[in-house]
Amino acid sequence: MSARALATDYGAAGKDLLSTEGIDRAFVERVLTEAASFEEVLRRPVPVVPVMRGITVAVAFFEPSTRTRISFELAAKRLSADVISFGATGSSVAKGESLIDTALTLRAIGAGCIVIRHPASGAPGQIAKLLDVPVINAGDGRHQHPTQALTDLFTIEKRRGIQEGLRVTIVGDIVHSRVARSAVWLFSRMGFDVVCVGPPALLPLHKEGWPCRFHSSLDDLLPETDVLMLLRMQFERGAGGRVGSAEEYRAFYGLDSKRAEALPEGALIMHPGPVNRGLEIDPAVLSMENCVVTEQVSSGLAVRMAVLYLLTVGRLAESSGDGSESR
Amino acid sequence: MSARALATDYGAAGKDLLSTEGIDRAFVERVLTEAASFEEVLRRPVPVVPVMRGITVAVAFFEPSTRTRISFELAAKRLSADVISFGATGSSVAKGESLIDTALTLRAIGAGCIVIRHPASGAPGQIAKLLDVPVINAGDGRHQHPTQALTDLFTIEKRRGIQEGLRVTIVGDIVHSRVARSAVWLFSRMGFDVVCVGPPALLPLHKEGWPCRFHSSLDDLLPETDVLMLLRMQFERGAGGRVGSAEEYRAFYGLDSKRAEALPEGALIMHPGPVNRGLEIDPAVLSMENCVVTEQVSSGLAVRMAVLYLLTVGRLAESSGDGSESR
Amino acid sequence: MSARALATDYGAAGKDLLSTEGIDRAFVERVLTEAASFEEVLRRPVPVVPVMRGITVAVAFFEPSTRTRISFELAAKRLSADVISFGATGSSVAKGESLIDTALTLRAIGAGCIVIRHPASGAPGQIAKLLDVPVINAGDGRHQHPTQALTDLFTIEKRRGIQEGLRVTIVGDIVHSRVARSAVWLFSRMGFDVVCVGPPALLPLHKEGWPCRFHSSLDDLLPETDVLMLLRMQFERGAGGRVGSAEEYRAFYGLDSKRAEALPEGALIMHPGPVNRGLEIDPAVLSMENCVVTEQVSSGLAVRMAVLYLLTVGRLAESSGDGSESR
Repeated sequence: MSARALATDYGAAGKDLLSTEGIDRAFVERVLTEAASFEEVLRRPVPVVPVMRGITVAVAFFEPSTRTRISFELAAKRLSADVISFGATGSSVAKGESLIDTALTLRAIGAGCIVIRHPASGAPGQIAKLLDVPVINAGDGRHQHPTQALTDLFTIEKRRGIQEGLRVTIVGDIVHSRVARSAVWLFSRMGFDVVCVGPPALLPLHKEGWPCRFHSSLDDLLPETDVLMLLRMQFERGAGGRVGSAEEYRAFYGLDSKRAEALPEGALIMHPGPVNRGLEIDPAVLSMENCVVTEQVSSGLAVRMAVLYLLTVGRLAESSGDGSESR
Repeated sequence: MSARALATDYGAAGKDLLSTEGIDRAFVERVLTEAASFEEVLRRPVPVVPVMRGITVAVAFFEPSTRTRISFELAAKRLSADVISFGATGSSVAKGESLIDTALTLRAIGAGCIVIRHPASGAPGQIAKLLDVPVINAGDGRHQHPTQALTDLFTIEKRRGIQEGLRVTIVGDIVHSRVARSAVWLFSRMGFDVVCVGPPALLPLHKEGWPCRFHSSLDDLLPETDVLMLLRMQFERGAGGRVGSAEEYRAFYGLDSKRAEALPEGALIMHPGPVNRGLEIDPAVLSMENCVVTEQVSSGLAVRMAVLYLLTVGRLAESSGDGSESR
Repeated sequence: MSARALATDYGAAGKDLLSTEGIDRAFVERVLTEAASFEEVLRRPVPVVPVMRGITVAVAFFEPSTRTRISFELAAKRLSADVISFGATGSSVAKGESLIDTALTLRAIGAGCIVIRHPASGAPGQIAKLLDVPVINAGDGRHQHPTQALTDLFTIEKRRGIQEGLRVTIVGDIVHSRVARSAVWLFSRMGFDVVCVGPPALLPLHKEGWPCRFHSSLDDLLPETDVLMLLRMQFERGAGGRVGSAEEYRAFYGLDSKRAEALPEGALIMHPGPVNRGLEIDPAVLSMENCVVTEQVSSGLAVRMAVLYLLTVGRLAESSGDGSESR
């Protein structure tokens, strides 16, 4: 099987998952299929499959995280992989070890897959070029966070199905959000009709090239929204300075019960978490049946199992024409 | 089996272990029995039992710790559970993720049990209310540290047996100590005669409701003490400012060889660790045969295995009337 | 088997690996043999052997590290040991727990082997005296880092064989380097001809007792060097203040292509990592075939498996006269 064929089967970058920009649709569909099958595994009394036994997954997080790191670590363990986890604190990064050296170390000790979060946009891509093992971008600067977008897509599929023209409204701090970037490109790839809405200072300055529409009024869009995706206000990335005040933001873009009622029946309410309660969403809305914030987290485990599996063992199984690996 | 019945079987809070205040005596006795049986497991060449296979234990420590965290992690591994461990450093707590969101994340990824240490008194209780999985308090502020008290009880049982009226003297920084609080309530529940002694500024201001006596002279109490439990001076919690000086504290409350000789024959000397050597205990006393500080640590592993087991698998086994799970 | 016999079989300290000074040559040779056999294990699809099942390895790193910590953790997992890992951050060391208490805790919870890195020279030795379980020094202050030297020896053996009189040149910051100390004593023990070269301010003030020669001109030595071992400039340990400037250091001691060509054919170029690229080595040299920096990292995994195995299970197998443990 040629490198080109692999690229076709496994996303834009072939061996890696770095971005949803130009992602291969066949790969996305396999992720959804495998994730559904892993969700069944997760309902078993012993929710473990031996498919990655003997493979070491290095989880290298150079930014604070709880949910994404835990989700990847647990996904790898559920697949019977070994997990080596490290971060900026307590690691040699403190003593000036370069990203390149870290990557070479991970390869040299036999890591079979590298999951990396890094504050610098593009860092996972640099690592991926150096290594012949798959690299998964778990969030890089303002750039991309592809497994989050795949998780959201999987959540949408389970609730609404994947429909051409599904109307998705993404709300808030678009310019600082790697979640927004990953979602916009993935959803447009799947044929959804995507619109981003937020205060002008939080929309991208250069909108050319974004495969979506932009708008400034949330209230106008609510009645025509099938999926409402609220973003976290990234105060730690400087979003605070771009809006008048939290009160002002909430007045125009916060989802309270009144706005939730303006959505069509069955519209989904999503948020990648962690939620700033009372700012992006009112607590009352969080407990509505069509608000799937918690479901997004549990979907994330199955999706990350699917991605880890497909980029390691699944690829080998396929390239040797043998799809019969035991579960 | 009704919720009430479960509460009767498994301690004050039913599904959780948050406090020793009002703890169910039948639960305590089951912990002691199971801990004894797990101590046998721990003496095997391969000290592992498969009873928690497939269950994920989340160990969430929001305060520094070595021994308690390691003890819980190793206990879970000895039971074949998966362990997901995280703390304040390197976690999203740094980026303002709320305790509620952390709890919901842990539930969503399928954690089967949550062990939490938190600087805020009551935090584990808040989490427990939100979740349907068992929550174990591994120390919250000045409030409670129930597995430490159960560990100490187990150590006492092995050396002295559980006897009505056993005279326990707890010495030192009572007011800052969650260990003292947990011990006082647990030991009084078991019918022990408990007295707390320390400098007046380190005793509680409001003594009503504490099921124990208070005293200020250690020397008076020594001849009538079966178990002497010394507490750690919590300088990091501000205890330093409440005593004249370390020298003064040692003069009145430090256990040197002379004071140790004033104890009745066979009296136990305990300390939850880590010891401030030469302050609470003289190094010479630490090596006496009836000083069980190290034994307390190893007891802790078996007791935590017992608690983890009883709150997860043990409960299910019992509520289905099936106590025949293999060891 | 007497304690003396064990000491003969398992290195200077008998039960521990603390230093290469006076290390037993028979032990070194067993490490090399076992490491070669574990490298074969590491090439298997499931690179795991069950030899340490049920044994807990405590990995206690009180200094930042990525590669050494990961290498030990993964080595232990490949041998089926349980790993308990902790460091200065997030551990009770922050609340003043003494090294002694940490050691007693580790023994009490049943750790079967302790791997320790500590900023204080001699700290692992202190722990080793307190405990009856094997202690492995993973780097202590400026003192020793014996598994790194064994790793380098194993790398040399695979490429050049162990030959009496092999000419090894160690370059750079000798005085701050525990890697240099461990290498000098180990290599001289193996009969190599070792010379240390570097700016006078980075050579030891008292050279008596070092089993090697010293020199200040790298260029003079290059034509007579079989193995060139470059050390990391330890700016974080104050090396910066001892040389005029990075440029000056590079001018006299940096390995560029021209200097690399002055080496005899087949001479090895080594560096323990992490490399300060463009200072100790030019990037172009790093990709030369006889530059084995990455190979050193992968050798480290097999060597650490060998050391862990020999100090725990291997010793028992031998002392009972039973060398037939299954692999």
